[in-house]
Amino acid sequence: MSKEIPYKIYLEEKEIPTQWYNVRADMKNKPAPLLNPGTGAPMKAEELEAVFCKELVKQELDDTTPYFDIPEEILRFYKMYRPSPLVRAYCLEKELDTPAHIYYKFEGNNTSGSHKLNSAIAQAYYAKKQGLKGVTTETGAGQWGTALSMACAYFNLDCQVYMVKVSYEQKPFRREVMRTYGAAVTPSPSMTTNIGRKINEEFPGTTGSLGCAISEAVEAATSQEGYRYVLGSVLSQVLLHQTVIGLETKAAFDKIEVTPDIIIGCAGGGSNLGGLISPFAGDMIRGEKKYRIIAVEPSSCPSLTRGSYVYDFCDTGKVCPLAKMYTLGSGYIPAPNHAGGLRYHGMSSIVSQLYHDGYIEATSVKQTDVFDAAQRFARIEGILPAPESSHAIKVAIDEALKCKETGEEKNIVFGLTGTGYFDMMAYKSYNEGTMSDYIPTDEEIAASLANCPKV
Amino acid sequence: MSKEIPYKIYLEEKEIPTQWYNVRADMKNKPAPLLNPGTGAPMKAEELEAVFCKELVKQELDDTTPYFDIPEEILRFYKMYRPSPLVRAYCLEKELDTPAHIYYKFEGNNTSGSHKLNSAIAQAYYAKKQGLKGVTTETGAGQWGTALSMACAYFNLDCQVYMVKVSYEQKPFRREVMRTYGAAVTPSPSMTTNIGRKINEEFPGTTGSLGCAISEAVEAATSQEGYRYVLGSVLSQVLLHQTVIGLETKAAFDKIEVTPDIIIGCAGGGSNLGGLISPFAGDMIRGEKKYRIIAVEPSSCPSLTRGSYVYDFCDTGKVCPLAKMYTLGSGYIPAPNHAGGLRYHGMSSIVSQLYHDGYIEATSVKQTDVFDAAQRFARIEGILPAPESSHAIKVAIDEALKCKETGEEKNIVFGLTGTGYFDMMAYKSYNEGTMSDYIPTDEEIAASLANCPKV
Repeated sequence: MSKEIPYKIYLEEKEIPTQWYNVRADMKNKPAPLLNPGTGAPMKAEELEAVFCKELVKQELDDTTPYFDIPEEILRFYKMYRPSPLVRAYCLEKELDTPAHIYYKFEGNNTSGSHKLNSAIAQAYYAKKQGLKGVTTETGAGQWGTALSMACAYFNLDCQVYMVKVSYEQKPFRREVMRTYGAAVTPSPSMTTNIGRKINEEFPGTTGSLGCAISEAVEAATSQEGYRYVLGSVLSQVLLHQTVIGLETKAAFDKIEVTPDIIIGCAGGGSNLGGLISPFAGDMIRGEKKYRIIAVEPSSCPSLTRGSYVYDFCDTGKVCPLAKMYTLGSGYIPAPNHAGGLRYHGMSSIVSQLYHDGYIEATSVKQTDVFDAAQRFARIEGILPAPESSHAIKVAIDEALKCKETGEEKNIVFGLTGTGYFDMMAYKSYNEGTMSDYIPTDEEIAASLANCPKV
Repeated sequence: MSKEIPYKIYLEEKEIPTQWYNVRADMKNKPAPLLNPGTGAPMKAEELEAVFCKELVKQELDDTTPYFDIPEEILRFYKMYRPSPLVRAYCLEKELDTPAHIYYKFEGNNTSGSHKLNSAIAQAYYAKKQGLKGVTTETGAGQWGTALSMACAYFNLDCQVYMVKVSYEQKPFRREVMRTYGAAVTPSPSMTTNIGRKINEEFPGTTGSLGCAISEAVEAATSQEGYRYVLGSVLSQVLLHQTVIGLETKAAFDKIEVTPDIIIGCAGGGSNLGGLISPFAGDMIRGEKKYRIIAVEPSSCPSLTRGSYVYDFCDTGKVCPLAKMYTLGSGYIPAPNHAGGLRYHGMSSIVSQLYHDGYIEATSVKQTDVFDAAQRFARIEGILPAPESSHAIKVAIDEALKCKETGEEKNIVFGLTGTGYFDMMAYKSYNEGTMSDYIPTDEEIAASLANCPKV
């Protein structure tokens, strides 16, 4: 019997990690380098610095330094909303009648509503430190754009957000939050960039895509003096910042003297998953511990479970470097009925390599099952989860129910990355029974993959 | 110099109060009793029990018992989202360049988005314990309805919410959150009650009011077997439950060995204010300590600062008991341009009496100033506040700036009752510069007050 564990395990402020962990330093097989799409040669720092902040490029390319100090200014901001709680889901356990112990690391208790703020504040800080005027970015559902606008407001930086048009129109309140934080939000594809005008001309009436918004944001950054582009997921620098999640999780478990058996995260671009699991994956790579790590993706956008591990474009406009990753092809867009987020066509190169090397399992789940789990969780644990996070909830419940059958008292932890307050359109279609599932055919995926570059 | 105080002062789980504090037991002048609107005689328990849960009636009428035990089942629920943090607003202090120390008690870190959950879970518990099938209520902005639907989902109780029609139409997402928690939400005035039909007939096309929704909810409760009516503010039972806020605040201050000089809360019906200040007011009444307590109300609904202290109706339909309170008259409705919440015509009888006896000051603020303060706070402290809460922020900033002039190192604490995620329409009008102010004329208030009953 373990000693009594509170509902919420909080670290003290002084226990917030003061360094981020770079799992690449421990990886035997390093993630493949980013390539110049023109020459096919590995991207050099100078090339990347035209697009990204200098300090962030350094973090992006460094696969040997195991720890990076978190600057004091970022730590101060972290203290406003961190440490985030590790929560013991007692009520869910009781409802499921499982011997498993279920925990979740809750990253939704900040106004951006998600873990995205962890990297946004870091990226804004380095931009400010470099003396830039502002940054540009894209946002889909709006979590990243909100986080970045908060971070830029704090450091008094200009913030230009290209928001996928369909979200811009369907989520006026997300847009309004960003405006309250002083960000300029433009629906994408727009008429303010060459690539936007080109896409609007080729596909009149298009409602946009993440890949297209990325291309516009990159163009906006490189065509304005004193601006750089920042990204909310996929990149190794983002995963680095997000390790604050995993490090806190590990510290909290140490505090209650519990070792997790199963670690579950939802996977879109991979930032939350990578951040949560990095310290645990490091243990495994170094042969110190063994965990089951499960990446959960939507069955309508199954990059790990059904994609190929190849070099691919990161954006529709093909202006970004090539990355080796599990991908469905850069032209892949989830079916229109997909409301559950996690719609990026590829996966972080770190997560891809860890998966390729067998440190991570992956599974895909249907969105109606995801919303069943979301509603169940909301009603019993009192938190309305983001659709993205609910992918992890679904699999955590499944694993807890397996424990019920076997009688095993496993410790399960999942990342509750955010809240669903701005996803009520999706909940509405679920509540009204009009939500449906779509699973792409093998032919659709093969056709999309055929457009990957030959490297 | 005080020792180093963290950004967030968290109590431990075992330090969550196990009793609510009933300030009436210490008050020398007790709040006036509720009266039967027909006979003018004080309401008896049996009469109230037709409308309210038995145990809650007991709490409502008891002005001598200083503490009520919080039942174990409610404490368990509290542990899912409490203790709430007392936050030191270091960043705001720095931005204001004030010697004052600013603190806020943050009640927004739960899915209802506000402090309302503290009483909702208590009321749902007593309804369940009484063996009821369900409860009915009204909601304006939707915070209370959301909180109650969460509480009812947890105890598996039916929940029927009458939502002011204008909010129902303008806030589809609030409605959707309630539906996700299983509540039935009806726009008010509806055609499902006699009073609703009557109001619809008399005022075709009306968009409803809180007072009207209350009348409908009461009728729905009393006309269905196994149902009772529950209310989110104004009543003494609600203030009792909300003292968990003030008790935690006091305990947290004790922990860091700080005594607040100024305590600020927004005031609509009075539940958050009463809950926050009760333990401090108790100190003052018993002559043990001296604080400045400031109630902040909107200048468009100034019940304390410009109303009369008389018996009045609590609802439009005049089916509820009469309460002695600072009131603008039960027919008073804030101007249509008022977007900042706190729109109830009266004030909790406890708060009214404390104000009348000089323990509380009151001030009113214009909504454009309130949103200025809200935006400033959001950008520097990272939390997007509810419009209601922002009334307190405005006055806290004003007081901190006075300290800057005088050089005084005062400790200021205010209640940050909730988040503004579902109030983006109001923020939109602020962001677009279309928000305006309205201050009622003396004639308007006098005309409304003329309809108060003669008791």
